[in-house]
Amino acid sequence: MRTELDFNSDLGESFGVYRLGNDAAVLPHVSSANIACGFHAGDPRTIARTVKAARAAGAAIGAHPGYPDLVGFGRREMQLSAEELYEITVYQVGAVKAFAEAAGSRLSHVKPHGALYNLGARRREIAEPLCAAVRDVDPGLIFYGLAGSALVEAARDAGLAVAQEVFADRTYQDDGTLTPRSDPRALITDIEISIRQVFEMLREGVVTSVNGVAVPIQADTLCIHGDQPGAALFAQRIRAALDAAGIAVRPPGARLPATAAG
Amino acid sequence: MRTELDFNSDLGESFGVYRLGNDAAVLPHVSSANIACGFHAGDPRTIARTVKAARAAGAAIGAHPGYPDLVGFGRREMQLSAEELYEITVYQVGAVKAFAEAAGSRLSHVKPHGALYNLGARRREIAEPLCAAVRDVDPGLIFYGLAGSALVEAARDAGLAVAQEVFADRTYQDDGTLTPRSDPRALITDIEISIRQVFEMLREGVVTSVNGVAVPIQADTLCIHGDQPGAALFAQRIRAALDAAGIAVRPPGARLPATAAG
Amino acid sequence: MRTELDFNSDLGESFGVYRLGNDAAVLPHVSSANIACGFHAGDPRTIARTVKAARAAGAAIGAHPGYPDLVGFGRREMQLSAEELYEITVYQVGAVKAFAEAAGSRLSHVKPHGALYNLGARRREIAEPLCAAVRDVDPGLIFYGLAGSALVEAARDAGLAVAQEVFADRTYQDDGTLTPRSDPRALITDIEISIRQVFEMLREGVVTSVNGVAVPIQADTLCIHGDQPGAALFAQRIRAALDAAGIAVRPPGARLPATAAG
Amino acid sequence: MRTELDFNSDLGESFGVYRLGNDAAVLPHVSSANIACGFHAGDPRTIARTVKAARAAGAAIGAHPGYPDLVGFGRREMQLSAEELYEITVYQVGAVKAFAEAAGSRLSHVKPHGALYNLGARRREIAEPLCAAVRDVDPGLIFYGLAGSALVEAARDAGLAVAQEVFADRTYQDDGTLTPRSDPRALITDIEISIRQVFEMLREGVVTSVNGVAVPIQADTLCIHGDQPGAALFAQRIRAALDAAGIAVRPPGARLPATAAG
Repeated sequence: MRTELDFNSDLGESFGVYRLGNDAAVLPHVSSANIACGFHAGDPRTIARTVKAARAAGAAIGAHPGYPDLVGFGRREMQLSAEELYEITVYQVGAVKAFAEAAGSRLSHVKPHGALYNLGARRREIAEPLCAAVRDVDPGLIFYGLAGSALVEAARDAGLAVAQEVFADRTYQDDGTLTPRSDPRALITDIEISIRQVFEMLREGVVTSVNGVAVPIQADTLCIHGDQPGAALFAQRIRAALDAAGIAVRPPGARLPATAAG
Repeated sequence: MRTELDFNSDLGESFGVYRLGNDAAVLPHVSSANIACGFHAGDPRTIARTVKAARAAGAAIGAHPGYPDLVGFGRREMQLSAEELYEITVYQVGAVKAFAEAAGSRLSHVKPHGALYNLGARRREIAEPLCAAVRDVDPGLIFYGLAGSALVEAARDAGLAVAQEVFADRTYQDDGTLTPRSDPRALITDIEISIRQVFEMLREGVVTSVNGVAVPIQADTLCIHGDQPGAALFAQRIRAALDAAGIAVRPPGARLPATAAG
Repeated sequence: MRTELDFNSDLGESFGVYRLGNDAAVLPHVSSANIACGFHAGDPRTIARTVKAARAAGAAIGAHPGYPDLVGFGRREMQLSAEELYEITVYQVGAVKAFAEAAGSRLSHVKPHGALYNLGARRREIAEPLCAAVRDVDPGLIFYGLAGSALVEAARDAGLAVAQEVFADRTYQDDGTLTPRSDPRALITDIEISIRQVFEMLREGVVTSVNGVAVPIQADTLCIHGDQPGAALFAQRIRAALDAAGIAVRPPGARLPATAAG
Repeated sequence: MRTELDFNSDLGESFGVYRLGNDAAVLPHVSSANIACGFHAGDPRTIARTVKAARAAGAAIGAHPGYPDLVGFGRREMQLSAEELYEITVYQVGAVKAFAEAAGSRLSHVKPHGALYNLGARRREIAEPLCAAVRDVDPGLIFYGLAGSALVEAARDAGLAVAQEVFADRTYQDDGTLTPRSDPRALITDIEISIRQVFEMLREGVVTSVNGVAVPIQADTLCIHGDQPGAALFAQRIRAALDAAGIAVRPPGARLPATAAG
């Protein structure tokens, strides 16, 4: 039985005059903020604002790099070489790291976004340059990746501390991957079922797939989407359930002292 | 009489498939490389390549931030607030800093580009947020600005080490500012006259204006443009003249040990 | 006393996943849609969707070109040459024109956006290249510009049909210009005062300035902002008042048959 | 034996201060100019300049749309939906069409660029939205696509006039597709071999594959790349050979009067 869990959310996804998500309502409930870096969302002003808000809320500051595709919000696959994947990651992580340091804080972690996350979870050759970039920028950064995926393997092999990510609002397949959004069973909208799934992961180290199979899963960090209707309420309810169960919600850095000092 | 001088060039101004300047030919002659950050020129691949080349050539690595205007190459004035100026500087400096560190080196200095440089040289309220951003990202960075300008004053007031920049290929006005490019006398194309101007600055601490006035000027760093025809030859000739005169060409960090350790 | 009036709104200002304004609620009340062209807002998908919605609602389709500054929403002045102003206008008008024609409709008008509108209203040298571009793309297009401004003069001199634009939710200065937003009296939030201002313009051909001066003004088209809270209700109330007074709300093309056939 | 041939080149691929290709040297030899539209290359200024140069040289003006990927020059595959492919094509074709018309000329043809061309040649579901967009903007436009490919089929099915494109500097596979650039035999650098391949296509309607197979091929338009070293000389030599053989070099519109009038 785990006694602690990180609670993360993708934040800072506004752009210029455009507002996306409800960062102010989600931030009080999470322990980690993954901040868009300006390629798929975010801009210098939004990053600065979000870094300050995360710091004020006591959330760990992370970079959330994506494909250079603002109009597609980083959700469209792009055919980038390993070198290009490495370089767009160094660039984006460096930009957010500077805002964290300029605000008197530090960058704690990196979590890829959208198509970069999904492709990296399935394919080692996509995951490896992302992890190499993170390690080369700062080997003390914690890498967040889909639990059990190629992202986790590549990050470990790169010598990075890893936080295996699980989802409260998504169902799983028998092989531990997420049910694709094209499948009507992909999303969990019932908050009670979500909470049950989270506690099953924490207490038993498994998730029950859409076919009823108990799939082993390691839950280091739980993602709460910030850009969906009801996201804030969802975050609040899950957080309350964790608090009530005596599970400490805090960033993975707190569990990994050697890394946090890196 | 100065016995040393920094020799800097704006490099990494290519973009995607587009090539600009002749970085490979200029790099052997300079001690500092100002690398475009992706807003007015440059992209992650170009930055990575240029950082590695600068490191291999032994040149100090600097960031060269500009307005977010790729099509205008950062040469068109844009009406940004002080907050926006601060934020675009943090972002760009952070991105190049990460590449320097990922390559096992470090970022040494920052020099604004184009319209940002020109406006900052004239107006304190433009210069100040640029300098505040550089200091907040890393107070050990050296700020390069037009000798005697508002950039120099603002950087000093921000507590930054400053390198006052002079030009070998531009003429000066009686007030120490550069003759605008719209004036036919703006450019010096005769290499002998250029060399004479440089040595006048170094030996006597003055520059002779277009009107024959001896204007006091401090020459910490000399800019060699890398994107003009004959730039490499120009750099080579001036470098040879400095070497022959026993003037050490090295980055300002070497003169400012307290800062270099920052 | 005017018996007809065009009612226009700036629409299609969403971008990618980002939503701005409430186009669906505003469209039923207006006779002209000014559609963002992808430089300050909008993208191919948003333009396509907005053109179809405008067509379905029976609104005249117009292009709403702006500065190439997505992060600043076209509200920041940029130092563009006359040639550049001409060319960014041709480009943007051409793009939206193609969507109108691909949807089986046609482009009716052009209204500059944001800083381009404001600068063009004050300065002939900004207004002229905009108008020349519109005329060169299609001399039958109607140009919308601030009533009594340099935009109107330049458009007339370019041989374009002009619709003089007035505002229901902004106050005016003694010289007929809008009160700057920095002045607390700039905005009219009381719907009754707005309606009174509109009818004063239509019935008496004047607007009462913030200082109580009756300033002559020609109201061909009335702008309703679509991106403010309550915009749809505001549009609905003004439209109802116009309908009740027997004032026909229709695009200026209907008043200018020679142009409409252009 | 064909007695006429269109000679096309991809032009206007500069961007901002960046120069690519040698348009001025290539233009005198070609009958069709495919002009980049600002998504993978080109900008309003470059388009305006290239349209005028093409018009002055008597070349037919075409649009050369690509993926929205400036840093990758449109050579990286992107996962766009059919709707997005349709919309980015309408947008880009419309923009260049407006420049052609503003310059007193007209848009004649459209040829997709880079990854969009290559994917469209192989996959009907990519080719179809491109062709539908061209037809919807102007059914009189001629579609240029790889000879024998899905682009040609989709354009025909969309009711568009088609010019089948062949290459002088590329070798072919047994199935009529181009040898991939990853194969060392992909490029023909010997001008004599190039000329022989062109005349084989024109005289016998076949191309000899890398394996010695005679593959039937229809050569309506011959592509000369403008961005490679020696491109202008290459263009000049092939043009001279065609002239000497009495083959008329002219745009396909001249062969397709019904379409040209569209």
